[in-house]
Amino acid sequence: MSSVATFKQDPHRLLVIPGPIEVADDVLYANAHPSMSHVSAEFVPVLGDCIRMTREVLLTATGQPFLIAGSGTLVLQVASNLVEPDEDVLVLNTGYFGDSFAECLQTYGAKVDHITAEVGGVVSQADIESALKSKKYKIVTFTHVDTSTGVLSDAKSIAETVKKVSPETLTVLDGVCSVASEEIRMDDWGIDVVLTASQKGLGTPPGLSILVASQKAIKVYESRKVPPNSYYASWKKWLPVMQAYEKGSPAYFATPPVNLIYAYHASLTRITKGSPNLTERLKLHKLASQKIKAAAKGLGLRQVPLDDNFAANGMSAFYFPEGVTGPDVLPRLFKKDVIVAAGLHKAMKEKYFRVGFEHMGISVVDERRGDIDKVIASIKEAIGEAIESKKV
Amino acid sequence: MSSVATFKQDPHRLLVIPGPIEVADDVLYANAHPSMSHVSAEFVPVLGDCIRMTREVLLTATGQPFLIAGSGTLVLQVASNLVEPDEDVLVLNTGYFGDSFAECLQTYGAKVDHITAEVGGVVSQADIESALKSKKYKIVTFTHVDTSTGVLSDAKSIAETVKKVSPETLTVLDGVCSVASEEIRMDDWGIDVVLTASQKGLGTPPGLSILVASQKAIKVYESRKVPPNSYYASWKKWLPVMQAYEKGSPAYFATPPVNLIYAYHASLTRITKGSPNLTERLKLHKLASQKIKAAAKGLGLRQVPLDDNFAANGMSAFYFPEGVTGPDVLPRLFKKDVIVAAGLHKAMKEKYFRVGFEHMGISVVDERRGDIDKVIASIKEAIGEAIESKKV
Repeated sequence: MSSVATFKQDPHRLLVIPGPIEVADDVLYANAHPSMSHVSAEFVPVLGDCIRMTREVLLTATGQPFLIAGSGTLVLQVASNLVEPDEDVLVLNTGYFGDSFAECLQTYGAKVDHITAEVGGVVSQADIESALKSKKYKIVTFTHVDTSTGVLSDAKSIAETVKKVSPETLTVLDGVCSVASEEIRMDDWGIDVVLTASQKGLGTPPGLSILVASQKAIKVYESRKVPPNSYYASWKKWLPVMQAYEKGSPAYFATPPVNLIYAYHASLTRITKGSPNLTERLKLHKLASQKIKAAAKGLGLRQVPLDDNFAANGMSAFYFPEGVTGPDVLPRLFKKDVIVAAGLHKAMKEKYFRVGFEHMGISVVDERRGDIDKVIASIKEAIGEAIESKKV
Repeated sequence: MSSVATFKQDPHRLLVIPGPIEVADDVLYANAHPSMSHVSAEFVPVLGDCIRMTREVLLTATGQPFLIAGSGTLVLQVASNLVEPDEDVLVLNTGYFGDSFAECLQTYGAKVDHITAEVGGVVSQADIESALKSKKYKIVTFTHVDTSTGVLSDAKSIAETVKKVSPETLTVLDGVCSVASEEIRMDDWGIDVVLTASQKGLGTPPGLSILVASQKAIKVYESRKVPPNSYYASWKKWLPVMQAYEKGSPAYFATPPVNLIYAYHASLTRITKGSPNLTERLKLHKLASQKIKAAAKGLGLRQVPLDDNFAANGMSAFYFPEGVTGPDVLPRLFKKDVIVAAGLHKAMKEKYFRVGFEHMGISVVDERRGDIDKVIASIKEAIGEAIESKKV
């Protein structure tokens, strides 16, 4: 038999895309847990703990987590339970994932208005305020970190503005690319819903979608006039299941992704009970981010975010130098065993690349690994080689 | 570093519930694969192979697989793409999962008629024929093996009847509890859609929902009058992604469950390329099933299926002897390190239990493990002890 003490994952290239990210050996080992019954006395508290630790990561005392097998994209649908047909929604759009969220909400009948930021920018509080004054919105959504641009929105100020101008409106934070790599104080800031997925800052393989709803959001859901028009993603189905597991008894609507729950448990344990603690981890993140951004600046690479104040700490997006494109640089990085991500934003897909280094347990927290230095050195070399090759 | 040759899962109790089932060491090891980019040149063919091998398992040349992160319950929603609001659906109901499928279809606007079999029975071909004559149904659904009762429906005859009486109607087989443990000849029998999940006969951890649509079903979907009223489960979103990966290029709608895809690949490789081959595996399954059922008969345990001809080969459901219930037997089996499942059918939840032994790679195919004998001996002892305890 193997054991967590002896298990070491296979050698592989360093994965620094904005998710999936590098996963620690003990988390991968948990993903290889022997098959367990989803209703067994051994498994029930594991899922119960995951519910409790998810709350800890988001600094909420009474938020209700939903842990559902599916990709991050599913969680947009899980959030749609809050909106009934023909209700108005305001999307603060900072890139690709604002479009996705809007399309999802429209599928369920919402009437969506966008405030679209310029590429690399954020939506201003004044624009949010005037939109909220012009119409009664059921929810306001924003992408905390848009994976397509690396733009970080100011969650605290957005929630404040919503509360001030339209206190009944719910603030929904798409944290797929920010939870556990950016500060989120759900209760203090009055965020009503946070949605995320397992494979980014939470350091777990992909396949688990995660939503946390405040009690206010649960009440709004419970006062729906028509039943949810979604089956698998219905809060009606999942709420009793989550409540039962947290209390220590099983309930059934769908078979949970048992192995992935063990893996999520291992990663959450690192994040909430390990050293460094959550606050320190966020700090280390910021430092690693500053290091990469400074190095890129030194290379003359321009960031996609227009201002350092709204650049994410869990990922970066940089434009290539003039005359150089993805096919010049990415294969060169690959040869150096470093995997970064191509562009995704439709306005300039070919012109930039993305680096994610969100794993708090490995690339950022464990400095001995030297991941950040390797990434910086490799980018420097690859860009240099690419420019050189153009001169020939 | 660990390797597939040395990796052995932790010792654990023998899990013989109807899913999740025992998973082989190499499949669990694949689930602990280092993080990989979902759009990388290494990963794309792995997902492509999974699409091709899924076809092989269902004996279809041109069926279109959809592999989507989610529980088995999600796949009911994936199937709902075929039905538009107010269209008629006929559900052949043999238990719990017929009710679930109906509820899911209704969520998306279908008008559902049921033909409900008596507990332990199947719907007669005559009843199906007369229902099809009375009304034009868009689809007919049936649960191939109802996990709540162990009843096996006659897929071939159902498809024949549909084709004869109402050739435009699509036949949809819910194979969550039958794929890779019961014979399914999708093309030969003319089954239009097969839906399933990873954690039963396919021998993979839970978290992947799998649907295969015939080209006829794809055409019916493409001729929808209104767009699909589901976001994450929309064929419109997934069809280009599946086609791209099969051709060898990545596409993005949602991050696939990368590790689970590696695990599914390992299990499909065993099933489609390993020895014994698929036909032999189904035969071994039948033999194991007969052995357990004969042993239970010897103990005086009555099967839930009313007739041997419609008892599943991948699981069994037995009533407890008079005066004995789950709490008398299941903890005793647990002490013998054997995990069976409690009842699920609302009509008689407390009166029966379920045994799954669907893993073709381990419990059934590898006789050296002695799993089947251990299960039989343990049931015999536990039932004996339970009866004895009641006498005191």
